[in-house]
Amino acid sequence: MKFSIKKEILLENLNNVIKAVSTKNVIPILGGIKFNLTEEGLFLTSTNNEIDIESFIDKKYIDNLEKTGTIVIPGKFLIEIIRKLRDGIINIEVVDGLKLLIFNDNSNFSLNGIDSSEFPNINLDISTNPIILSKKVIKNIFNQTLFATSTQESRPILTGINFKIENNNMECIATDSYRLAKKYIELDQTVDNLINIVIPGKNIGELIKILNDEDENVEVHIFSNKILFKFDNILFQSRLLNGSFPDTSRLIPNDFLYEIEVNLNEFYEVIDRAALLTNEREKNVIKFETKGNEAIVSSNIPEIGKVEEKLNINKNNDSDIKISFSSKYMMEALRTINSQNIRIYLNSDVKPIILKNDEDENLLQLILPIKTY
Amino acid sequence: MKFSIKKEILLENLNNVIKAVSTKNVIPILGGIKFNLTEEGLFLTSTNNEIDIESFIDKKYIDNLEKTGTIVIPGKFLIEIIRKLRDGIINIEVVDGLKLLIFNDNSNFSLNGIDSSEFPNINLDISTNPIILSKKVIKNIFNQTLFATSTQESRPILTGINFKIENNNMECIATDSYRLAKKYIELDQTVDNLINIVIPGKNIGELIKILNDEDENVEVHIFSNKILFKFDNILFQSRLLNGSFPDTSRLIPNDFLYEIEVNLNEFYEVIDRAALLTNEREKNVIKFETKGNEAIVSSNIPEIGKVEEKLNINKNNDSDIKISFSSKYMMEALRTINSQNIRIYLNSDVKPIILKNDEDENLLQLILPIKTY
Repeated sequence: MKFSIKKEILLENLNNVIKAVSTKNVIPILGGIKFNLTEEGLFLTSTNNEIDIESFIDKKYIDNLEKTGTIVIPGKFLIEIIRKLRDGIINIEVVDGLKLLIFNDNSNFSLNGIDSSEFPNINLDISTNPIILSKKVIKNIFNQTLFATSTQESRPILTGINFKIENNNMECIATDSYRLAKKYIELDQTVDNLINIVIPGKNIGELIKILNDEDENVEVHIFSNKILFKFDNILFQSRLLNGSFPDTSRLIPNDFLYEIEVNLNEFYEVIDRAALLTNEREKNVIKFETKGNEAIVSSNIPEIGKVEEKLNINKNNDSDIKISFSSKYMMEALRTINSQNIRIYLNSDVKPIILKNDEDENLLQLILPIKTY
Repeated sequence: MKFSIKKEILLENLNNVIKAVSTKNVIPILGGIKFNLTEEGLFLTSTNNEIDIESFIDKKYIDNLEKTGTIVIPGKFLIEIIRKLRDGIINIEVVDGLKLLIFNDNSNFSLNGIDSSEFPNINLDISTNPIILSKKVIKNIFNQTLFATSTQESRPILTGINFKIENNNMECIATDSYRLAKKYIELDQTVDNLINIVIPGKNIGELIKILNDEDENVEVHIFSNKILFKFDNILFQSRLLNGSFPDTSRLIPNDFLYEIEVNLNEFYEVIDRAALLTNEREKNVIKFETKGNEAIVSSNIPEIGKVEEKLNINKNNDSDIKISFSSKYMMEALRTINSQNIRIYLNSDVKPIILKNDEDENLLQLILPIKTY
């Protein structure tokens, strides 16, 4: 393998594949990035058994494709080296079988590579009829649900996002059993088979980092045991979680006694301040209580002090209601909403709290209350 | 105590005193900020037994000075509350003896205070003949030496900066016994007594955070057991370390066989890249070797690979020299220098490395080599 390339082009592509480079270093090969230089260009690949990423650099971006070939290089070192090299052309060459030289006029690095035959065999085949969505839309749907996944391994299935498609209706649901985030969108296409899979949340987190907010399309290829996202010059593949995601539809009430409208920013700031006098141990609990056209949000840490915040509300019901919930969960849910006002739906202090908004009717956030009264 | 004040004014002054608020919370009162509202204005004070800080808000910045008084409030909570309150006027009032109310139209906080009689008695008296320096100069001298203090408690005296004044010559020295930073400046005044004290490095680190780069003056008041810096509306007092600082003058050679001039940025970048293939366990060691008008900087981690960097140099001696040193120490020393070129002085591979520069002849950085050849 021997070629030359502009630093910024190589770095941009390494920044994509580094997301699947294992940092635990249990198996050295998983800490590596595979270079495969062909007549078409350079394929960079990484895998950590959770995610596989391929980033392709077309030959037109390669300055001097002298000799094709393949090798695996420790990713962590490689990316730091490329990042710190002077701007301009970098020369890369394999010598003595497994040594990778990286050099320019000033710098001469020699890294010990690993034979690419030791690299896991990754199947990055695509399907014939992918689902097509814009990057912006797919990034948004994951951002609005990912935070609600569980971080606890006691129920592994809840660490993933439930991704379902029926006809032209695509839905993502995440829940840690204390709160739930749900978003659906209508596809421009109709899918024949019912799709109901669970994608590990952590992997989605890595995907989001690579996806920008542009309008370009992502092809989503779904298989029985994996999902592959194809965009720009990148293939991003994640394993799926085994097991079936709980049916959460019964959890979400259809009728509500109370519909309360509040200004999103004001509500967020009020909760944020009230949260100052809560603690993790007590689940960051705060109280919300309506008094006509006003709500009082309050909390306290007995040794430290207490807080009461006032907020203007619009309420559909003459009677008042008190309910308590986690300020942390409420703020995380509010951060997914981009709208001037939100609507809070309630039935009683022991029934789920639902958040909806005018700008995005397809987004629903649910938080279970905490009994304090 | 009862008054009103603009949020931004209170916050700015709390940000000064928070630096001496103990976060360990062993003794609750040391986690507090003392409010003392007098007819002159509001004195905010904090202490953690290492540093004492007072930040004074003149009555002209207080909107409604209704009732003087004093109380101690948990600093960590207080500053977060003030930070998150809406911009505008905040009302502050002590009720029921030890409750502090903080409120505006929307928010109502009530914090449990502590009687200010429990607050340590801090003597912030100033002397009659302080040393006068600009903020910029004093911040610079500490920044250029602080990094070289020891972080190990085995020789406590080395965790401080040695601060000496003789006549009109002020000198700061720091060393962890592997490297040394030394800077002197000429004062506009002459000091009668010989001053030779050691200021804890950590405390200087907190002072630097509060000092801005303006040209205004700082008064430095030195006592037998403490040092007090007076600037803006702030008094910042630090304890001193007991014991005598080692005499390091013998360490610094007067004559050198080699004087090597290099471009600072190029040298820094070369070291930074070579450092990629070093590790902490091996003291981040890199090799420096001259070959006529070129230097080769090299390092390696046998399992990973090796690097060689080339650098143009100007050398006063026809013979070449090899020397090894810690890349981390070299980079930290180089970061204190603001000059296009630097001069490296050497005698042999086992004698100290000295760095000097044209822009700041009064700054000397010394690094002990590591024997590798």
